Amino acid sequence: MVRKKKIKKPSPLLYADSDINADQLYFGKVFVPDPFLSFSVNGKKYAFANSLEISRMNSESTFDELLSLEEWLGKAARRYRKKTGSITDIVRLVVGEFAISEFVVAPDFPAGLAFKLRAARVPFKIAEGPLFPQRDCKNDAEAKALKEGNAASATGIKAAEKMLRDSTIKKGNLMHGGRLLTSERVRQVIEIACLEKGAMSHKTIVAGGDQGCDPHCNGYGPLRANELIVVDVFPRVARHGYHGDMTRTFLKGKATPEQRRLVRTVRNAQKLALATIKAGITGAKVHSAVEAHFKAEGYLTKKSNGSPEGFIHGTGHGLGLEIHEPPRLNKTGPRLKAGNVVTVEPGLYYRGVGGCRIEDVVRVTKSGVEMLSKCHYRWELR
Amino acid sequence: MVRKKKIKKPSPLLYADSDINADQLYFGKVFVPDPFLSFSVNGKKYAFANSLEISRMNSESTFDELLSLEEWLGKAARRYRKKTGSITDIVRLVVGEFAISEFVVAPDFPAGLAFKLRAARVPFKIAEGPLFPQRDCKNDAEAKALKEGNAASATGIKAAEKMLRDSTIKKGNLMHGGRLLTSERVRQVIEIACLEKGAMSHKTIVAGGDQGCDPHCNGYGPLRANELIVVDVFPRVARHGYHGDMTRTFLKGKATPEQRRLVRTVRNAQKLALATIKAGITGAKVHSAVEAHFKAEGYLTKKSNGSPEGFIHGTGHGLGLEIHEPPRLNKTGPRLKAGNVVTVEPGLYYRGVGGCRIEDVVRVTKSGVEMLSKCHYRWELR
Repeated sequence: MVRKKKIKKPSPLLYADSDINADQLYFGKVFVPDPFLSFSVNGKKYAFANSLEISRMNSESTFDELLSLEEWLGKAARRYRKKTGSITDIVRLVVGEFAISEFVVAPDFPAGLAFKLRAARVPFKIAEGPLFPQRDCKNDAEAKALKEGNAASATGIKAAEKMLRDSTIKKGNLMHGGRLLTSERVRQVIEIACLEKGAMSHKTIVAGGDQGCDPHCNGYGPLRANELIVVDVFPRVARHGYHGDMTRTFLKGKATPEQRRLVRTVRNAQKLALATIKAGITGAKVHSAVEAHFKAEGYLTKKSNGSPEGFIHGTGHGLGLEIHEPPRLNKTGPRLKAGNVVTVEPGLYYRGVGGCRIEDVVRVTKSGVEMLSKCHYRWELR
Repeated sequence: MVRKKKIKKPSPLLYADSDINADQLYFGKVFVPDPFLSFSVNGKKYAFANSLEISRMNSESTFDELLSLEEWLGKAARRYRKKTGSITDIVRLVVGEFAISEFVVAPDFPAGLAFKLRAARVPFKIAEGPLFPQRDCKNDAEAKALKEGNAASATGIKAAEKMLRDSTIKKGNLMHGGRLLTSERVRQVIEIACLEKGAMSHKTIVAGGDQGCDPHCNGYGPLRANELIVVDVFPRVARHGYHGDMTRTFLKGKATPEQRRLVRTVRNAQKLALATIKAGITGAKVHSAVEAHFKAEGYLTKKSNGSPEGFIHGTGHGLGLEIHEPPRLNKTGPRLKAGNVVTVEPGLYYRGVGGCRIEDVVRVTKSGVEMLSKCHYRWELR
């Protein structure tokens, strides 16, 4: 295997498992639980696999060629006259055999290996931004996968809604099946509904009352009547790894005029954002439109007793193999491109009134958006 | 905040989220979905948190002090006369303010940040082995958490067993609820059973017949009568992040004498390994005892038609916040210490006969082992 031609464009180099590392999964489209080496050169993709994985990776992945880890470790040991070869040695061999002029690695490439490669004079640089910038524009197959993720989200949200509808109110608490209805019980029902759709949902948010005002609180303990309950479901489809991310805010009982105005304002903000988004507009502009809307409606964002309240997070984020990926819809959000898939999730949070967030997922088009999520917006459950 | 005393021992420095990064979770005992900076100095643990996370992290984590990310970014910007501060700038500030002589980072520390720190002359080295070597010895609270993980595994395995028992045989296929029983259906029942125990189980292995001979095949399609079915359940308890990892091998119908001898030999190998393990013995010795047992019983490990068969994986691995962690029970396994928690999972795999693996989890003690998993070993289901 001798390839003499010198390569000009840096060759991506990865060392990660693909259960967790999204670049590695994107690169080879195969789940591998342990870190492995992969690279591309001249448009061809290669990965090293051990004897237990090589035949499965060969049949399931999009790598053009699987190289035997054991063989190359042996080859490296002989070449560098060591008892056993190492990953670093294999990369050194690859540089020669594939005529690599320079590698490029992701910022999250493991530092331990990076410094060893430096010491071994393997030429590489660290990508300034993402290793695969093309990941931020989703093709039709990816959009379909993200719809599937959001269908799982919707199933989870509807399971929660049904449980809230079926509950009764007793002294201000919600009762279901003769027991107090808690965030934990609703979460479990959501996560089981997602599993039945082939998607893994974790840390699912079911946060009522003031708990819903802390966007990073997952919610715990008894749910109460007449309180806003934020339900945020972000599962990953087990088969391909793409996500759903959808939020609805419910209330069991009777809402106050203040709660109704809050929810209406958030929903209108979402409509405004959806109407603003199109290719060419910046994420920052979308975000500031939402901010301006809230301000005009009298909803201020500030600190209250040391805690932030109002519109305290970004309007949205990219969604794909990772739950948070570029581009962002926030103060510094970049120009949107056709194919970007983003969440649109304005929210308002005021202790005493409660929190409300409404979230859907869209693909950006030249002229607007294509909805990738679908679920009704009824929220007051008697 | 001025601390003048120079520190001699390198200070651990982390930049990772704690949903995935086990060191970060071990360090602060709090789940945070986005990467954050943490370090320790003079036995005190610090972390940076943004305004949305700081109060939750303050109440839930074991960090001694939470530092405001926004405040320190501002401070760094002023000190280094930049428009906005960066994570690198904050680390530079920390070196001065906490009188750090040297940091130590894990091998999986992100290379992007590592090279920026190098360029900013922040003194640090990369740990040769694990960042927190103490992670490999589990205290009583951790052993209890691992027991909880294994109780979830056992619940999943028993759910699978019940489904197989309840199934009927029709033309060699297994039928359940009027439909073909598949690996996928059994997997779903297992994962729901785990969820109901508060544990997340993914990629659960339910692999029958020759599929069970590939230890990295999760199993798919219809399950058949009279075939060995490997069921390997390795959930993570959502509340604290510790794992269970347990395998049983079942057969629905009637086993052949060859299958019975295979299963008996694997179970005897496991008993042998359990009797061999104690503090002071090497993992390599445990592994070679199992290898010798299989060889003596006539079960050879070799390649057959290009695929490995026999005893084709290690005897076990450390288990904790990660599913695979030190120490290993394999050819190069190190000396075991009291407190190590390891899986004990010999297996034999021969296409045509099937695969069998039996796995439990133990904590190593001075004189032997403490079982952390519990489930019966009946396997032939009529």
